[in-house]
Amino acid sequence: MSYWHIDYQSKYQALTFEVTEVLKSIQSPYQKIEVVETPAYGKVLLLDGDLMLTEKDEFAYHEMLVHPTMFTHSHPQKILIIGGGDCGTLTRVLQHKMVEKVVLVELDEMVTQVSQEYFPQLVSSAQDPRVELIFTDGIKYVHNCTDKYDVILVDSTDPIGPAEGLFRLPFFQDCYHILEEDGILCLQSESPWIPELAELISQVNLDLKSLFPLVKAYVAAIQTYQAGLWLFQLASKKYNPLSNDIESKIKEADLKTKYYNSKLHYGAFILPTFVNEILNEPL
Amino acid sequence: MSYWHIDYQSKYQALTFEVTEVLKSIQSPYQKIEVVETPAYGKVLLLDGDLMLTEKDEFAYHEMLVHPTMFTHSHPQKILIIGGGDCGTLTRVLQHKMVEKVVLVELDEMVTQVSQEYFPQLVSSAQDPRVELIFTDGIKYVHNCTDKYDVILVDSTDPIGPAEGLFRLPFFQDCYHILEEDGILCLQSESPWIPELAELISQVNLDLKSLFPLVKAYVAAIQTYQAGLWLFQLASKKYNPLSNDIESKIKEADLKTKYYNSKLHYGAFILPTFVNEILNEPL
Repeated sequence: MSYWHIDYQSKYQALTFEVTEVLKSIQSPYQKIEVVETPAYGKVLLLDGDLMLTEKDEFAYHEMLVHPTMFTHSHPQKILIIGGGDCGTLTRVLQHKMVEKVVLVELDEMVTQVSQEYFPQLVSSAQDPRVELIFTDGIKYVHNCTDKYDVILVDSTDPIGPAEGLFRLPFFQDCYHILEEDGILCLQSESPWIPELAELISQVNLDLKSLFPLVKAYVAAIQTYQAGLWLFQLASKKYNPLSNDIESKIKEADLKTKYYNSKLHYGAFILPTFVNEILNEPL
Repeated sequence: MSYWHIDYQSKYQALTFEVTEVLKSIQSPYQKIEVVETPAYGKVLLLDGDLMLTEKDEFAYHEMLVHPTMFTHSHPQKILIIGGGDCGTLTRVLQHKMVEKVVLVELDEMVTQVSQEYFPQLVSSAQDPRVELIFTDGIKYVHNCTDKYDVILVDSTDPIGPAEGLFRLPFFQDCYHILEEDGILCLQSESPWIPELAELISQVNLDLKSLFPLVKAYVAAIQTYQAGLWLFQLASKKYNPLSNDIESKIKEADLKTKYYNSKLHYGAFILPTFVNEILNEPL
């Protein structure tokens, strides 16, 4: 028997979609994890009822979280992923041949277990010998970490509950310290279309700028995320994501992508005026 | 008493939002016209239940339908708008000082009457002495027209019912004939995220290319439209929308905008890979 799931974008607006079958529904120590079958998006992963991942369009989010940073860095060998238990981000990181080691720190092991069953095309990447999965709190991991990384990617849930600290200065400071001297931090940072999120986005920009010499935001159109437009914030110690030589590197790598490409690498950083205004950046 | 309105994006997915008050509900000869008050988007215009226009984000759609073409043309003096009875497109066209004459052809006069009452900030532009409103079928108007235009903007509803012909070759042929020899046609052409629309978008691209030497698609993020990503198709007899000199023209004009800007003029034409694939265009 089918029903319509409601995924709230704010108190006043929601995406709703038909669910034809509940494939899994389980309570972890942290959240309710569900996988549902939908005609619009294929299989969908829900955490506490919030849409996290869909089979048909996960590529847009994961490619855009991963590839802009990975191509900006000249030798991304040691990578830290915070969150991302579904392994969609991990899968794209491993497309980059230079990668020698990826540590993925996910709070909720059951997210990965459930994803392994329903999104094996993503979680199979966890079998790669370069990968280490650690199931613990990402904020604590980064705070206590003594290793150094070339790239940190923050693939978090919304900034409420356990993920809230991933959008705050102390976490960014810890990330800064465990990044190599030419390291890059990139985080997903929610939808600029939702007025309630504007202050958070603006504050993240200020906090990152207080630490990193080069901070730039970019966008991607992600149909199933809040209001369809998603922001990412990239903070770099050395490399400029708009450097001219990146286009040829992307073409050479010839990755299989469905969203990202060598021109879009630059195009994504060109923001609508209202997004620049939220960031307090000049046009 | 509030309720949640459901705006279908396809058979299987919808945007839903709280409505706190129905301000107007009236049946025209063509469709049901409603204006509702919403906490998420301010006032919203619905036609047969489909979201057409919201007070808080109409700027994204209207700026992006109008400004890329208007700045691409070197002297956009005579403009034809097909549809657009809410006058949001008209308002942006009149921001361009070179404009001498705008003819707006809307099928349903009651759309304009209702908009005048609830969106006066848009419909006030209809009082401009350069404007002529004609309430008739746009397809017939263009077919029988003996005037010539510099720019035609197609601000249509979805390609079902009366608007279907606005996405078809005979209409494009008629547009071609009434455009000056350096004229430009630009149409809104729906969401590339919706699989059911891919064939239409691809066919429009082929049809326009059979007539015009220069056809280019561009996108905008429009949160309240289907799946949040919107395509526009621009067909030009002479001017290239990616010409270098446009950036300085945009900066000089210094229009008040909330979405469009001089960098985004170029950025909007950089498409995600899956959109290029729908259009059968190389990257």
